This record gives sequence, structure tokens and C-alpha cells, in this order.
Amino acid sequence: AAPGAPVMGGFPGQAQDPLYVYFSAVAGQDGQISAEELQQCLTQSNISGGYKPFNLETCRLMVNMLDRDFSHTMGFNEFKELWSVLNAWKQNFMSIDRDRSGTVDPQEMNQAIVSMGYRLSSQGMNGIIKRYSTHGKITFDDYVACFIKLRTLTDLFRRRDQAQQGVASFQYDDFIQCTMST
Amino acid sequence: AAPGAPVMGGFPGQAQDPLYVYFSAVAGQDGQISAEELQQCLTQSNISGGYKPFNLETCRLMVNMLDRDFSHTMGFNEFKELWSVLNAWKQNFMSIDRDRSGTVDPQEMNQAIVSMGYRLSSQGMNGIIKRYSTHGKITFDDYVACFIKLRTLTDLFRRRDQAQQGVASFQYDDFIQCTMST
Repeated sequence: AAPGAPVMGGFPGQAQDPLYVYFSAVAGQDGQISAEELQQCLTQSNISGGYKPFNLETCRLMVNMLDRDFSHTMGFNEFKELWSVLNAWKQNFMSIDRDRSGTVDPQEMNQAIVSMGYRLSSQGMNGIIKRYSTHGKITFDDYVACFIKLRTLTDLFRRRDQAQQGVASFQYDDFIQCTMST
Repeated sequence: AAPGAPVMGGFPGQAQDPLYVYFSAVAGQDGQISAEELQQCLTQSNISGGYKPFNLETCRLMVNMLDRDFSHTMGFNEFKELWSVLNAWKQNFMSIDRDRSGTVDPQEMNQAIVSMGYRLSSQGMNGIIKRYSTHGKITFDDYVACFIKLRTLTDLFRRRDQAQQGVASFQYDDFIQCTMST
């Protein structure tokens, strides 16, 4: 930097990143954000666009999805990763929600789940879709919550299904840790 | 009933039950309520007392906890069962929240989990408590959400741990059905 140029934060490479503005505004000294702060951050960034902002419960799922060190907080690299995943989901949602009603139908949700590579029984599929429906439709917030949970739980399962046979064993404590955090 | 006395609903035994008033007001013809209707029902009944009403996500957990026929709705018998469980949890919460701040501390939450008979590692315990904390405290809504999830997941696990060894095997589809519904 030229003499006298402002040094931002101490993360020179990140200072140019527009995402870093949203992130650093709420992260403070420790460079980590909690689920409450993530909610604030995503609302300010307007990633939901015309859709309702994410509720706290969905933000908790987001933090836990990427929480590799079990800190229940999120650093900037995880935030960037989340940002790109959210944008992909948003594109997907908008391509289904053609009339911009803010919701998608159960059949469209079914197709979206299949198109993301999840293979489920029809009972499993119906259960998931009912779980995330409100008055028979799925909002963007619940769409994201559903895909975060599916991704997180599938990852957790795969790591315990080492023979890749579609069967995994859990100790009680491990099962509770995996499933209570999602 | 005396001639001319009003016949309520067609469920004479339930007509005298004050709970049935809240329930039938929202259940309508089919005698079943959805998570959205349960939220309305619990808010009207004021079971949260001075505490914030339950959010929709917690009401979904409540419906799924007792949803034995996978209908994602709740009949009057399940509603009564939920009512007594909620009252027990509320008594418990109020006995901890002595200053009526509306929140309990992590250490108190730890004791409550232990006192309900759950045996977890300290890592598991800390993970759960962090997951349900907001600014380091646990609200009544999250307290209830946490105990519903713990109870539901422990029940699901036990049914698959037939040897009672604390180990259970899951097929992928079954794992996803169990965990996505909670």
C-alpha cells in the first residue's frame, strides 16, 4: 500500500470483498458471527431479495452446517461458502417460483430435491415436504432450511457409512449430537 | 342432556373439557389441527403465560412429537397429551426462572436436562445448550423446543436399539425420515 493509504481491518485481501463489508459490520473483534448476527448480516445484505428474511432457526441451521470446530459461530470463510450456496439455492427457487408468489408447490419441491441428487422413498419425500409446508406451500426460508438439513444430515450419515452401503451405526450420544445440532 | 339443552359438536364427553374450546375453535370439521393452527390455539390458550408465544418451528416439533400416523396434524387426544407435557415443562422452567426474566442460564439448563433423565457426554451437553441459547441464555420457547427434540429423538433411537446397548443402526432413508421430521 502507498504510504498513508488506509489499512482496513488487518485483512488487506478481504478489504476489497464487498461481502466483507456486511460481515465485518457485525462480526466485531473476534471475526466470528453467531446465528443472531448472521440473521442481521443476511437481512442487511438483502440476499432474500423480495422474499421474507431468514428466521433465526434457519440461521442456526446455517451456522451448524458449516461449523467444523463446534464453536457455534461462523468465520468469514464459512460465510463466503454459505453465501455461494445460498445464491445457488435462490437461483433454483426463483426458477421454480416463476410467478414470484414467494412459495413453491409440493411437486416442484419434490423435483428440486431429486434434482439435487437425493434418493428418497416416496414416504420419506412426502414426509419432508409436509414438514416444510405452510398451508400446502413451501416458502423460500423453509426451502433453504430443508436443503440445509438434508445436506448436513446426509454428510453426517455418510461419514458413518464407511462401507457406502447405505447403513450407519450410531452411539446414542453421537446420534443426539448429530441430530440436535441440525 | 335435558330436552332443549345445546349439544356441542357431537363429542358430548369433550364438550365439558375447557381445553376442547380452544381446540375445536381452530380444528374445524376434520377434528385435526396443523402446526399453524396449533400455534394459534396455544397463543389463545395463553399457556406461555408471561413468556413469548411459541414460534411456528416449535409448534411443528410439537405436532411431529406425537404424530404417530404421520399425518402432520394433531387430534384432540394428542393435544391433551401435549398440554400436560407443556404444563410440566412450564412448571419446571418457572422453578428455574425465579426472577421471571423469561430466560434460564446454561448451568440451569444442564441441570434440567440431567434431572429429566438424559445421560449425555459433556461435549453433547454443551453442544445442545449452545444450540438453544440466544445471547447466552435459553428462552422458554427454545427450552420447550430442546426438550421436544430430545424426547422425540431419544424415542426414535430406542426403538432401533432393540438390544438396549446404546447403539442403533439406520438405513439412510429411515435416518432422513427420523431426523428431518424433528
